[in-house]
Amino acid sequence: MSDPVKIGVLGADGRMGRAVVKAISRNARATLTAALTAPNAATLGKDAGTVAGIEPCGVLMSDDIAAGLADCDVLIDFSRPQAAIDTVLAMHGTKCQTFVTGTTGYSDTEAKALTEAAGGITLLQSGNFSLGVNLLEVLVEHAARALGPDWDIDIAEQHHKHKIDSPSGTALMLGEAAAKGRGKTLSDIRAPIRELSDAPRKDGDIGFSAIRGGDIIGVHDVHFINPLETLMLSHRAGDRSLFAVGAVTAALWAVQQKAGRYTMRDVLGL
Amino acid sequence: MSDPVKIGVLGADGRMGRAVVKAISRNARATLTAALTAPNAATLGKDAGTVAGIEPCGVLMSDDIAAGLADCDVLIDFSRPQAAIDTVLAMHGTKCQTFVTGTTGYSDTEAKALTEAAGGITLLQSGNFSLGVNLLEVLVEHAARALGPDWDIDIAEQHHKHKIDSPSGTALMLGEAAAKGRGKTLSDIRAPIRELSDAPRKDGDIGFSAIRGGDIIGVHDVHFINPLETLMLSHRAGDRSLFAVGAVTAALWAVQQKAGRYTMRDVLGL
Amino acid sequence: MSDPVKIGVLGADGRMGRAVVKAISRNARATLTAALTAPNAATLGKDAGTVAGIEPCGVLMSDDIAAGLADCDVLIDFSRPQAAIDTVLAMHGTKCQTFVTGTTGYSDTEAKALTEAAGGITLLQSGNFSLGVNLLEVLVEHAARALGPDWDIDIAEQHHKHKIDSPSGTALMLGEAAAKGRGKTLSDIRAPIRELSDAPRKDGDIGFSAIRGGDIIGVHDVHFINPLETLMLSHRAGDRSLFAVGAVTAALWAVQQKAGRYTMRDVLGL
Amino acid sequence: MSDPVKIGVLGADGRMGRAVVKAISRNARATLTAALTAPNAATLGKDAGTVAGIEPCGVLMSDDIAAGLADCDVLIDFSRPQAAIDTVLAMHGTKCQTFVTGTTGYSDTEAKALTEAAGGITLLQSGNFSLGVNLLEVLVEHAARALGPDWDIDIAEQHHKHKIDSPSGTALMLGEAAAKGRGKTLSDIRAPIRELSDAPRKDGDIGFSAIRGGDIIGVHDVHFINPLETLMLSHRAGDRSLFAVGAVTAALWAVQQKAGRYTMRDVLGL
Repeated sequence: MSDPVKIGVLGADGRMGRAVVKAISRNARATLTAALTAPNAATLGKDAGTVAGIEPCGVLMSDDIAAGLADCDVLIDFSRPQAAIDTVLAMHGTKCQTFVTGTTGYSDTEAKALTEAAGGITLLQSGNFSLGVNLLEVLVEHAARALGPDWDIDIAEQHHKHKIDSPSGTALMLGEAAAKGRGKTLSDIRAPIRELSDAPRKDGDIGFSAIRGGDIIGVHDVHFINPLETLMLSHRAGDRSLFAVGAVTAALWAVQQKAGRYTMRDVLGL
Repeated sequence: MSDPVKIGVLGADGRMGRAVVKAISRNARATLTAALTAPNAATLGKDAGTVAGIEPCGVLMSDDIAAGLADCDVLIDFSRPQAAIDTVLAMHGTKCQTFVTGTTGYSDTEAKALTEAAGGITLLQSGNFSLGVNLLEVLVEHAARALGPDWDIDIAEQHHKHKIDSPSGTALMLGEAAAKGRGKTLSDIRAPIRELSDAPRKDGDIGFSAIRGGDIIGVHDVHFINPLETLMLSHRAGDRSLFAVGAVTAALWAVQQKAGRYTMRDVLGL
Repeated sequence: MSDPVKIGVLGADGRMGRAVVKAISRNARATLTAALTAPNAATLGKDAGTVAGIEPCGVLMSDDIAAGLADCDVLIDFSRPQAAIDTVLAMHGTKCQTFVTGTTGYSDTEAKALTEAAGGITLLQSGNFSLGVNLLEVLVEHAARALGPDWDIDIAEQHHKHKIDSPSGTALMLGEAAAKGRGKTLSDIRAPIRELSDAPRKDGDIGFSAIRGGDIIGVHDVHFINPLETLMLSHRAGDRSLFAVGAVTAALWAVQQKAGRYTMRDVLGL
Repeated sequence: MSDPVKIGVLGADGRMGRAVVKAISRNARATLTAALTAPNAATLGKDAGTVAGIEPCGVLMSDDIAAGLADCDVLIDFSRPQAAIDTVLAMHGTKCQTFVTGTTGYSDTEAKALTEAAGGITLLQSGNFSLGVNLLEVLVEHAARALGPDWDIDIAEQHHKHKIDSPSGTALMLGEAAAKGRGKTLSDIRAPIRELSDAPRKDGDIGFSAIRGGDIIGVHDVHFINPLETLMLSHRAGDRSLFAVGAVTAALWAVQQKAGRYTMRDVLGL
């Protein structure tokens, strides 16, 4: 393995890709060696650092996947499903055998294609690269399993004032983890919207509430409430770079694993 | 003034009345001297302490208002509007010139009748005798007045799992205080139910959210959220006796005031 | 197994014993069948319910261990080490084969004697019967193991104004769990008292802070703080009956287990 | 008054000065017209925007105070006491009659000199330009005045892991406000360090505790704890630009006031 680890970024001119380029530049154990994008991208030929809003780094935006793969130990991907699948297929036989992907929106067909393409490759996929949120998900499932039905579960989240959907995707993910811990599916035990309900809380239900204001990046509080005691498991995102930094951490871990499929839970050793 | 202060309780066999009897028994500056109830009450003649679930105190439940007033410095009332009005009328010319009332549900006519009946009497009326909640209301109004429209206001409350209405009456009262601080009326700027809305938070709106679970007596968090900083003013009720203790505190204060109309804000010197 | 389960209490006139008697009276799955105390106790012959401050229950305080054991499925013990050891020895050959103990202060010799006495018995021992605190301890250890050294750990606790020791025993227990998760011993990585220190926080150290006020039963917040995100695992005790209720829950669980040694972690299935 | 308001910055190449230059560039109601520094500064002649780490703005760093004052409606100062005093003296007879200063470390003699120099000038001085912290200080004093001695006051703060002093200066300022609300001086009622104390909390004392970790900018929680209820007034800084933005807000307010001495309380209308 190279030291520092050589990392390529697929979709390096996208919002998350640029954040990953920044995160690599601040990590002494990593170095950017390829910045890939689509054949028709306006950024082709520009310095990836400049595109990311930092100092030029000497790596130019390129659509030459093969050349990029020749220079990398691991590829971090925030692009689109088809680009991800094509790139994984192109990885076979190259030096780069590790693919870390945060691309979302795979159709069932595309998900299957990715799985087939990845045979023999080290593939790490996640919808959220925050170490804290992934750990919280595991802890919530544990807690819901351990605590009996006398413990009411309510999930409160806070986000910036521009966020429209409510509850947040992460809150729903945490609710799903709590339901799983209870041997249930969230859709079966999600509490009705409280302001509209004229019945008391149903035993076993999981409730949600949302605060919106300012520029809050994300706060998630999972309350387990018993008549005699309360347990609260809480996560607060402090900086938007969090998710890019998590992807780099995941890449540095994945590059040392043998071929196979991994998630952030594996990175955390949970 | 007697030392300890002689307190009578009107509605002494009701839920709040019994809590007030208990609170008096634990306050060295106060003594229970009358326990009044309706003429047909099943508790007539029983010891008020026993009715309250504590040691007998030697004061028997009675419907003789005149005799009760002769023994009191101040009357604490948790009964019904008409009983309160009748009793205030009966106070004229007696030794007891102070009436502290937490009775709710007055019609406009009854409210007017109470005001007329109370001429020359020291009357303290409140819907919530918690010192903390009353202070919080004042602080919220101050903060909302001082902070500009860049600060989003969201009020989150927590109550036990049996509570059906949402948001709580106290949360709405705090929202009204925040709106007043901004020179508005809550009904004009109350944010829509978030889970049903497909628009981002509107500037100036006041939002509400509710957590329900276990046996939580009451938590109210008023968030003022700016893109750069957050102020949160929060109250937690720790014991259900809170409201009865607050009424006794109010009575001990009121008994030293001259005739006139007072609220908990006066007790707190705000 | 009897239904409801027959529970005896050893040390039934002590502070915790009385709380356990109360907790049994409120649990439909349990019934009090023996209330044991020392031979010279002033409470001998009195009704255990009356001693506990509730309605009489028909079980009289007694020092006849053998008679008590004949009536029980399980014994809950909050007495003293020697009394606990003697009683476990007396259990052999009786119907009662389950012993749940919250007695503390065993010397090494006494601890060994208890272990030897308990051969063939179902023994559950714990220093804290709160389900929530025990679960928190497990979650803290998991989190500390999963999160790298970039996450600073700080434990903040709140207790009533009369508590003298600081940090609380539970805070130290949680700190020990965090240290264990990091493969360390707390005494090696406990941060110095902050107000006295003239050096910045040392990487890997675990810090403590304490709030004292009012009648707070117990709040413990374990902060895991990264430059980009924060995880907080928090427990709040809401009622002093918590620990007695937990002991009864543990007894109802233990009575169904085969002989062996258990802790609250087993009750929680962790 | 100019629209946008013309603002000069004294000490424009210092840490706070650069943040102020940035904050002005993002405020549509303000424009930077002078960037002043010491005669021997290495930044002389450089573009103030570049020095601040943003786009060049066309204003060059200069030590010509007289020329700077001729171009400004108001001067924001984060320099040193003597530079501040000299500049205020130089303001007399110029167009610029408003001076907003966050410089700290004045000796008694320098403080007196500043006061004398400022006769006829609009002077606003503050040690902390966060609107939220200044409001919190006012609210804490109100609350401490309103609540009786049965409410224990404890102040908990959180800062980044590099901060050495503990409790923070802001925590002490809030403690001073609480003490003032009680008619006391903090030094007389500051609670001893808890971990070293073998006595319970003394009635009326104000306690402090500190959490250190990660990159926390600043959290201050002021707890008022009664046996029955708790009030908590809390501030969280979300972004380091907070203090510079507050200074610009203060300047835009001050420039509209007549001559005299002001604080952030005046800006907030408290």
